[in-house]
Amino acid sequence: MNNNKILIINGVNLNLLGKREPNIYGSQTFEQYFEELVMLFPQFQLEYYQSNTEGFLVDKLHEVGFSYQGIILNAGAYTHTSIALADAISAIETPVIEVHISNIYKRESFRHKSFLTASCQGIVSGFGLKSYAMALHYFL
Amino acid sequence: MNNNKILIINGVNLNLLGKREPNIYGSQTFEQYFEELVMLFPQFQLEYYQSNTEGFLVDKLHEVGFSYQGIILNAGAYTHTSIALADAISAIETPVIEVHISNIYKRESFRHKSFLTASCQGIVSGFGLKSYAMALHYFL
Amino acid sequence: MNNNKILIINGVNLNLLGKREPNIYGSQTFEQYFEELVMLFPQFQLEYYQSNTEGFLVDKLHEVGFSYQGIILNAGAYTHTSIALADAISAIETPVIEVHISNIYKRESFRHKSFLTASCQGIVSGFGLKSYAMALHYFL
Amino acid sequence: MNNNKILIINGVNLNLLGKREPNIYGSQTFEQYFEELVMLFPQFQLEYYQSNTEGFLVDKLHEVGFSYQGIILNAGAYTHTSIALADAISAIETPVIEVHISNIYKRESFRHKSFLTASCQGIVSGFGLKSYAMALHYFL
Amino acid sequence: MNNNKILIINGVNLNLLGKREPNIYGSQTFEQYFEELVMLFPQFQLEYYQSNTEGFLVDKLHEVGFSYQGIILNAGAYTHTSIALADAISAIETPVIEVHISNIYKRESFRHKSFLTASCQGIVSGFGLKSYAMALHYFL
Amino acid sequence: MNNNKILIINGVNLNLLGKREPNIYGSQTFEQYFEELVMLFPQFQLEYYQSNTEGFLVDKLHEVGFSYQGIILNAGAYTHTSIALADAISAIETPVIEVHISNIYKRESFRHKSFLTASCQGIVSGFGLKSYAMALHYFL
Amino acid sequence: MNNNKILIINGVNLNLLGKREPNIYGSQTFEQYFEELVMLFPQFQLEYYQSNTEGFLVDKLHEVGFSYQGIILNAGAYTHTSIALADAISAIETPVIEVHISNIYKRESFRHKSFLTASCQGIVSGFGLKSYAMALHYFL
Amino acid sequence: MNNNKILIINGVNLNLLGKREPNIYGSQTFEQYFEELVMLFPQFQLEYYQSNTEGFLVDKLHEVGFSYQGIILNAGAYTHTSIALADAISAIETPVIEVHISNIYKRESFRHKSFLTASCQGIVSGFGLKSYAMALHYFL
Amino acid sequence: MNNNKILIINGVNLNLLGKREPNIYGSQTFEQYFEELVMLFPQFQLEYYQSNTEGFLVDKLHEVGFSYQGIILNAGAYTHTSIALADAISAIETPVIEVHISNIYKRESFRHKSFLTASCQGIVSGFGLKSYAMALHYFL
Amino acid sequence: MNNNKILIINGVNLNLLGKREPNIYGSQTFEQYFEELVMLFPQFQLEYYQSNTEGFLVDKLHEVGFSYQGIILNAGAYTHTSIALADAISAIETPVIEVHISNIYKRESFRHKSFLTASCQGIVSGFGLKSYAMALHYFL
Amino acid sequence: MNNNKILIINGVNLNLLGKREPNIYGSQTFEQYFEELVMLFPQFQLEYYQSNTEGFLVDKLHEVGFSYQGIILNAGAYTHTSIALADAISAIETPVIEVHISNIYKRESFRHKSFLTASCQGIVSGFGLKSYAMALHYFL
Amino acid sequence: MNNNKILIINGVNLNLLGKREPNIYGSQTFEQYFEELVMLFPQFQLEYYQSNTEGFLVDKLHEVGFSYQGIILNAGAYTHTSIALADAISAIETPVIEVHISNIYKRESFRHKSFLTASCQGIVSGFGLKSYAMALHYFL
Repeated sequence: MNNNKILIINGVNLNLLGKREPNIYGSQTFEQYFEELVMLFPQFQLEYYQSNTEGFLVDKLHEVGFSYQGIILNAGAYTHTSIALADAISAIETPVIEVHISNIYKRESFRHKSFLTASCQGIVSGFGLKSYAMALHYFL
Repeated sequence: MNNNKILIINGVNLNLLGKREPNIYGSQTFEQYFEELVMLFPQFQLEYYQSNTEGFLVDKLHEVGFSYQGIILNAGAYTHTSIALADAISAIETPVIEVHISNIYKRESFRHKSFLTASCQGIVSGFGLKSYAMALHYFL
Repeated sequence: MNNNKILIINGVNLNLLGKREPNIYGSQTFEQYFEELVMLFPQFQLEYYQSNTEGFLVDKLHEVGFSYQGIILNAGAYTHTSIALADAISAIETPVIEVHISNIYKRESFRHKSFLTASCQGIVSGFGLKSYAMALHYFL
Repeated sequence: MNNNKILIINGVNLNLLGKREPNIYGSQTFEQYFEELVMLFPQFQLEYYQSNTEGFLVDKLHEVGFSYQGIILNAGAYTHTSIALADAISAIETPVIEVHISNIYKRESFRHKSFLTASCQGIVSGFGLKSYAMALHYFL
Repeated sequence: MNNNKILIINGVNLNLLGKREPNIYGSQTFEQYFEELVMLFPQFQLEYYQSNTEGFLVDKLHEVGFSYQGIILNAGAYTHTSIALADAISAIETPVIEVHISNIYKRESFRHKSFLTASCQGIVSGFGLKSYAMALHYFL
Repeated sequence: MNNNKILIINGVNLNLLGKREPNIYGSQTFEQYFEELVMLFPQFQLEYYQSNTEGFLVDKLHEVGFSYQGIILNAGAYTHTSIALADAISAIETPVIEVHISNIYKRESFRHKSFLTASCQGIVSGFGLKSYAMALHYFL
Repeated sequence: MNNNKILIINGVNLNLLGKREPNIYGSQTFEQYFEELVMLFPQFQLEYYQSNTEGFLVDKLHEVGFSYQGIILNAGAYTHTSIALADAISAIETPVIEVHISNIYKRESFRHKSFLTASCQGIVSGFGLKSYAMALHYFL
Repeated sequence: MNNNKILIINGVNLNLLGKREPNIYGSQTFEQYFEELVMLFPQFQLEYYQSNTEGFLVDKLHEVGFSYQGIILNAGAYTHTSIALADAISAIETPVIEVHISNIYKRESFRHKSFLTASCQGIVSGFGLKSYAMALHYFL
Repeated sequence: MNNNKILIINGVNLNLLGKREPNIYGSQTFEQYFEELVMLFPQFQLEYYQSNTEGFLVDKLHEVGFSYQGIILNAGAYTHTSIALADAISAIETPVIEVHISNIYKRESFRHKSFLTASCQGIVSGFGLKSYAMALHYFL
Repeated sequence: MNNNKILIINGVNLNLLGKREPNIYGSQTFEQYFEELVMLFPQFQLEYYQSNTEGFLVDKLHEVGFSYQGIILNAGAYTHTSIALADAISAIETPVIEVHISNIYKRESFRHKSFLTASCQGIVSGFGLKSYAMALHYFL
Repeated sequence: MNNNKILIINGVNLNLLGKREPNIYGSQTFEQYFEELVMLFPQFQLEYYQSNTEGFLVDKLHEVGFSYQGIILNAGAYTHTSIALADAISAIETPVIEVHISNIYKRESFRHKSFLTASCQGIVSGFGLKSYAMALHYFL
Repeated sequence: MNNNKILIINGVNLNLLGKREPNIYGSQTFEQYFEELVMLFPQFQLEYYQSNTEGFLVDKLHEVGFSYQGIILNAGAYTHTSIALADAISAIETPVIEVHISNIYKRESFRHKSFLTASCQGIVSGFGLKSYAMALHYFL
């Protein structure tokens, strides 16, 4: 799996990044930020996938999880409710890094619990979009 | 968003209304009740959507949630388990009213917890199909 | 009990509505809003009662609960602590609708628990004073 | 305090006994049953008090609690919520027996907790109106 | 089962009554108190059984529970741990009254929970040995 | 509200101070102690109110809570059960200080929770009747 | 241990099967059903043991648990309270299958917890007496 | 519904059976095991469905749940999180048997809770792939 | 009670020591180890009792608990479930030392709770069979 | 110990008072406020100690706790986590008053629990730096 | 590490032993008792260390934990709050025995939890100062 | 604070890195790894501090927290118990990143709770010593 292929997966509601309240969150969509990442990390073949459906995120993990070098996963709210995603992460061979844009421990208490972390390699949380870049450094 | 467009969204298992045990629940499907609502509220352009998949309900909220005047949501069992839906309601601009046909506080204790109410404008619960009509009065 | 008599009961601290911080909450007292309701619902003989004492609210439920068509109850803080009121609602024959001005699920967690809902016909919560009007539609 | 005076106190909602659904619960009011008790226990000067207001029950306990031989208390729903009544029982000198008509442990779980029992002499629960008579035997 | 046969069952550790610290608890054994009960209630054929073994108490409930008029049960510490005894009480036809010598709600919190009460006719607790006599009055 | 009027409110069961077990608690009633306070704090117009009824305590808070300089409240057992009183304190403008004679954290665990403290200016607890005097120093 | 010997153990209160309320539960005792099993599974040397005493069930597990091919255990109420039985199952070598006649997850919440399942090979629950036959298929 | 049609439904991540770590789990896919079942149970018309999406599993239950004789459901991780599936099982007429390959009570504590069991006919758990065959015996 | 008689009581499943998996646990039975203890502590008249039945352990505590100098008790799994044993220990006069072979705090969380310790003189846990010898030193 | 010596102890992070964000909290350090207290209470020999280390606070309590007249302790965050400090307070003879600048019941729920209060004479909380002065009045 | 060096470590507040209330606890300091131990166990090179600071206790465990034969640790109140000490015990190679003078299970419930036991060899608790001697026997 | 000074703080037990079991953890001490970091990040003036004492870690945060550009903190076990450290992080101005070498969510449940995260900028956990390097990228 030393093929340098790395997939970034964004889960539920993360498709709204950059489209909602641009005067506050900025008008940069994740697709635009992804272009930056591609340039910052020419060592990797970066790919991007987003879905709002828990089962489709599981499908995608199965699809790439036996051949890619790494997966960076921000599951959104499924982080706190999905044992299914945790099982998928444990079942595949590719290491998965859990990423969050905000510091989930500063938010409501039901967001402090992640079902995913124990199945992942590790977690990077709280650094804005920069969290994705910091996670990518692990695979260097 | 003063376009008088209001979407009623029914979530998981609510497609069985009127089809199951008609001698008990009556043979009226939600589609038939929806026709009644259309006639009762000629001021609104009413639309109806139903899905059993949590992610598709999120997709629909994203689709209409920046342009419609109101959304009436009966998420069925996802009410009690979905932080994803709660986040979607918080992220959009259209006000959402949570509706339940039965009085969920007369049922099992795991149905007393709604993840959605805190993100909604308010809740109308326990009045049978009439709950939808009562909720529509809010937008008059 | 088809006598069209409907009693609105407000519980503890709700006598302060319109008297406190008028620049914020408006200077409309509930008594003034009640006059509006009387005009909006000429089909009903509407009455109004308020008390800060739990036992007096129970007394009033007993008094009208075997002869009126409906009761709309906003018990204020007793909502979250009074099994006595829940028992009174269960004991009488007139259907009771629980009403709240604010969305209690957006507030402190001890306000998420209502002892009353399971004994009531249903709940309408979160629509400001309009909650009372929406509840009245149930009895039409 | 060996004056043979015994007060029976009924709390919230117990004034409805015999008045509600007489075809089910019988048409005997507690006042009528009290007459039977007076005849069954000529050794005692029996008295009876009922109120739906927690504070008035406390007042009554204070009033007789330093001079009567015994008190039999069925506090109704206040049993499960009132530390005030428990403190009043602990503060007075007359022994208090907690009585319940139904078996509260066969009902909802929030009725299993009594704040009063630890302050009372003992408890007699589950024997219908006969519970009062069984409790009176303690003072013989 | 109107044969006037009533069995008093004492459970675990209750054989020590009257034998332990006689200067404190008195030197009266339960057997001696039982003789008093026999004289006080000539209407009944009273019998007495004691065992420290949970299963033997179940055996005894099975043995008499389809033919005796009543059972008075003080299960001792098994009150707080034995679902087996609760099931046995539910399975037999003879009504069972739960009895305790001390007020169990004045003691450690793990003694506040009784698995038995919900299966019994009712409970009499806190009146010393007099609790047994008060319970017998139910069967008069 | 700089009128120097300060109301001391005592809640449920506190009318028994000095009347119960005078050889232990002393024969000083709160009314007598209040006279001492009046002399110690000539700067204030001190008043005193006591009631055993939760709703009447709310009434009194409403009555003085928009015109007095300060309120000192010992709600007794309602401290641990009354959201109604907490709401009343939050609704009025006069600052309220919570006072307890005993150290409530040395007593039963259900007395460790105060619903009132978060709505009050602060708490003074555990210094006997002196707690009232210490609280009054705040208003100097 | 390939000797085809299989022991069925029934625990507390299960001796009442077929003897209690025959018009409801049928008049078939477990002994009679056991005869059917013997005929259905001629491959096995089936044996049957029942006791109401937790310790005797442990004794029996020790006795056969190092020589028989399989054990089918319905411990009745001890399922929910006995760590002793769980330890015995873990200590022996013969695989044990946990069986229940009713679906214990449809009953009271204290019956949802089984101390035994984690020590057993597996569980078969909810199929009436047929549960025993389904369990026996495992050993074929 | 005596049409002998039985559907086996496998939920999330169960498509990986036999494909992952074949030296450990064997190289037999569920599709291959299903062929064995078809041969073992010629009395039934067996069908098989698998999906990783909760909503699609609900759709499938609706589709066959009013006409097939039986359903065998291994929902994978949705077992522990899905009230939606539980409601679907309760809503349909075909009896559903819950099946698990491993003994879920030997695993992490969050896997001990099944939302589904109370809605199913019963549960068979812990016998490897043999669990499916044991469940099928119920329908014979 | 200075008669130097000390009873060692082993509870449920401890009869399997030395008989199960001798290559792991050694082939020394507790009876053999007991012989060593007799030789190590010639000052004491040591006796040994084992039973798998909770009630019989209670019987034995009653039997020797008013005349022996000391009791060393390893109750096995009853440690974690038996209030009956705790009560028996409290009721007798002979001091009891709780002993465990393994360190129960390294095992499953339900083994961390001992009902017995609070009634015993003290606890010695985690030193293998040596725990018994260390406990005996207390009585020297 | 009537030597008029009183020690004020400030715990962890309280050394930052007056040094952090002076435009918000003011530029008054606790040392400066301490000078005011010295002038306000000439009857006392006031001393002041601060440390961020839990063990050093214990050392200081031991050092003065057998000779000073009083101690005023604001332990900062150790209030909520330190049983060691609670034990030290219980072990010494000098009465200790717990003080907090802010109303800790208005803050995060983990700050509502104080391990110290039950060991102290009483608590004064929520009055800003004035809390220290109010506490000193107790020793007058 | 068979060098016969054994360190006894006493934690927070244990320096007060023998100095506080000598008429109750005796005037023997731990230093004096330590002299007795030195004479009783001439086989060992015994050493003694005490500190009230959690971090210094960790330092000491690190210092001797790779060379001494054994450590006996009474951490005082840190027993119930310090994961740091538990980690230090797990990290070092010398076996550590947890010791308590009193029976911590007879005290407040927050003292029943020890973070240390699971990392230690075992525990000896409840035998007064004799607990230390009993622990030393383990190393013989 | 754009002075490029960054302090790495290691808390309790982390001084043992590289010194304990070198054949397993490697013989690299943190001091050696720190040298690598210095070379990898020539843009920063990196400093390193380690202490086993909670209060000294607080002292150090105060010392540099108003002048350095960044702090990277691995508090070890204090992560799970120290509100004092959380308060110190909130009080200072320099942003703090929480770092862990192992994935704390794969370990005991009491390690899943971090008191520190909500006060930090973010968290990087689970990447071995590489976690420190990934955190440093945030400050680039």
